[in-house]
Amino acid sequence: MGDDCAVVPIPRGHQALITTDFSLEDVHFRRGWHPADSVGHRCLARGLSDIAAMGGEPLAVFLSLALPRKLPQSWVDGFLHGLLKLARNFRVILAGGDTAQSAGGVMADIVALGSVPKGKAVLRSGARPGDRVYVTGELGASAVAIDLLSRGEEIRPRDFPRHFHPMPRIEVGRFLREKKLASSMVDVSDGLSTDLGHICEESRVGAVIEGDAIPLAMVGKSERKVDLRFALHGGEDYELLFTAAAARNVPSRIAGVKVREIGVITRGRRVWIRNKDGVKQEFQPQGWEHFKK
Amino acid sequence: MGDDCAVVPIPRGHQALITTDFSLEDVHFRRGWHPADSVGHRCLARGLSDIAAMGGEPLAVFLSLALPRKLPQSWVDGFLHGLLKLARNFRVILAGGDTAQSAGGVMADIVALGSVPKGKAVLRSGARPGDRVYVTGELGASAVAIDLLSRGEEIRPRDFPRHFHPMPRIEVGRFLREKKLASSMVDVSDGLSTDLGHICEESRVGAVIEGDAIPLAMVGKSERKVDLRFALHGGEDYELLFTAAAARNVPSRIAGVKVREIGVITRGRRVWIRNKDGVKQEFQPQGWEHFKK
Repeated sequence: MGDDCAVVPIPRGHQALITTDFSLEDVHFRRGWHPADSVGHRCLARGLSDIAAMGGEPLAVFLSLALPRKLPQSWVDGFLHGLLKLARNFRVILAGGDTAQSAGGVMADIVALGSVPKGKAVLRSGARPGDRVYVTGELGASAVAIDLLSRGEEIRPRDFPRHFHPMPRIEVGRFLREKKLASSMVDVSDGLSTDLGHICEESRVGAVIEGDAIPLAMVGKSERKVDLRFALHGGEDYELLFTAAAARNVPSRIAGVKVREIGVITRGRRVWIRNKDGVKQEFQPQGWEHFKK
Repeated sequence: MGDDCAVVPIPRGHQALITTDFSLEDVHFRRGWHPADSVGHRCLARGLSDIAAMGGEPLAVFLSLALPRKLPQSWVDGFLHGLLKLARNFRVILAGGDTAQSAGGVMADIVALGSVPKGKAVLRSGARPGDRVYVTGELGASAVAIDLLSRGEEIRPRDFPRHFHPMPRIEVGRFLREKKLASSMVDVSDGLSTDLGHICEESRVGAVIEGDAIPLAMVGKSERKVDLRFALHGGEDYELLFTAAAARNVPSRIAGVKVREIGVITRGRRVWIRNKDGVKQEFQPQGWEHFKK
């Protein structure tokens, strides 16, 4: 801080990883739904999850923040508290940024800088026919929280931690890169159907997913399982979706996080989902629109 | 593009430089005043100028862009044309970014990534008593353009190139760093009085500036000199302000850009400006508010 740029040492033999993500009021969050610390946490989680998806090490983050004139200072304090708490968790420094007044709502742009050993970043384009498809954790918790909020239900952040305080899977991404296990990887930010589509498109392959194998999140005070549709298409779970050669032994738990095999990569360019009776239907990406208005 | 992060190789033995800058409608530009290509150009120039001020080499830029729903596509095309043309000029790639819909006006956040040999970045904190103070080019052209626009005058971009299409001083910054000439440096984005204040504050020194030595910009069709006040306090000139030890021989022209000695660094912590009669008065930073409303 204090100079025109931040100077960040990149470890010897590493390349820089950079990602930028907007978090916009009424698109990615609502002030009436999300406590300020959750907005700050989720803003940073988006950036760190992108670093995780490349198998990278986060180094520093930069925050550009446009705020409406009438926003209470306590909201800004809460936002920064949530963001900095998550940053400390991964020993990432907030190394700079910019502030301005917004004519609309709160707009935050997070820039995450990380590094990865030269040539070792896990890309979306490395999946090969026969590779198995895996996902970490459980899916659908974030989408079901949005669904409940949009129907006017009051939910408690502690009952929906994967929505309000998602933890980016940095350690899992690092393990998969270090062990050279993942042939391709992406984070589940747009939803399984869309993000699997990203891997298949970049790798020029298709996939068959077993509907039964999808890990459904348990949510709420009563710990009920989410509907399959939330796990298939809901975004912002920030789990990792990756592929690995069939011969590789992928642990069922990495860095304390469950890892589930959910399908296989195919030569054909289409993506299918098969139900427990063996009936296949095409698995169309369904764009995750943040809040259906 | 196509992956969760951009992977950027940092040259061996270099550190990464990062800077982020907002360009906001009605704060940094007005659509009625600035052609779209000028807005795109100036947006990128802000970021590259920060890299120049550290003596860095620009590598890649990232653009986060929030656009109002009704914005014509031709405006976006013009904006990108201006930005990409300047990027090509410095062989910088647009390596990623994010887009969103804005509830207010156009909001662009530019992230510039550069590099500098390890430990060689020129900081604001290196000025020492006795060092001479230098500035590149001429000052005040940008502020006078804003002044004319705000008074309803129509001005042509080609008569005010330093306002509409400022060229970041990358080559000058590189030369000063390579030759180890500059002991401290900043770009003149907030105005001479404010930016000199930044150097003095970070270096814990003061300065005496010779009012007569300030290079006044020539502007307009008739090439008249700007008033001194625009050169002293006007922002967004994107020239370089630097200090060098008295014993060092600083060329009067670097990479085709004039370099002018304008004062000296002092032990006392205050900053003075002296007129041609030798009368000193305190040189107070006057915050450059973009458009005085």
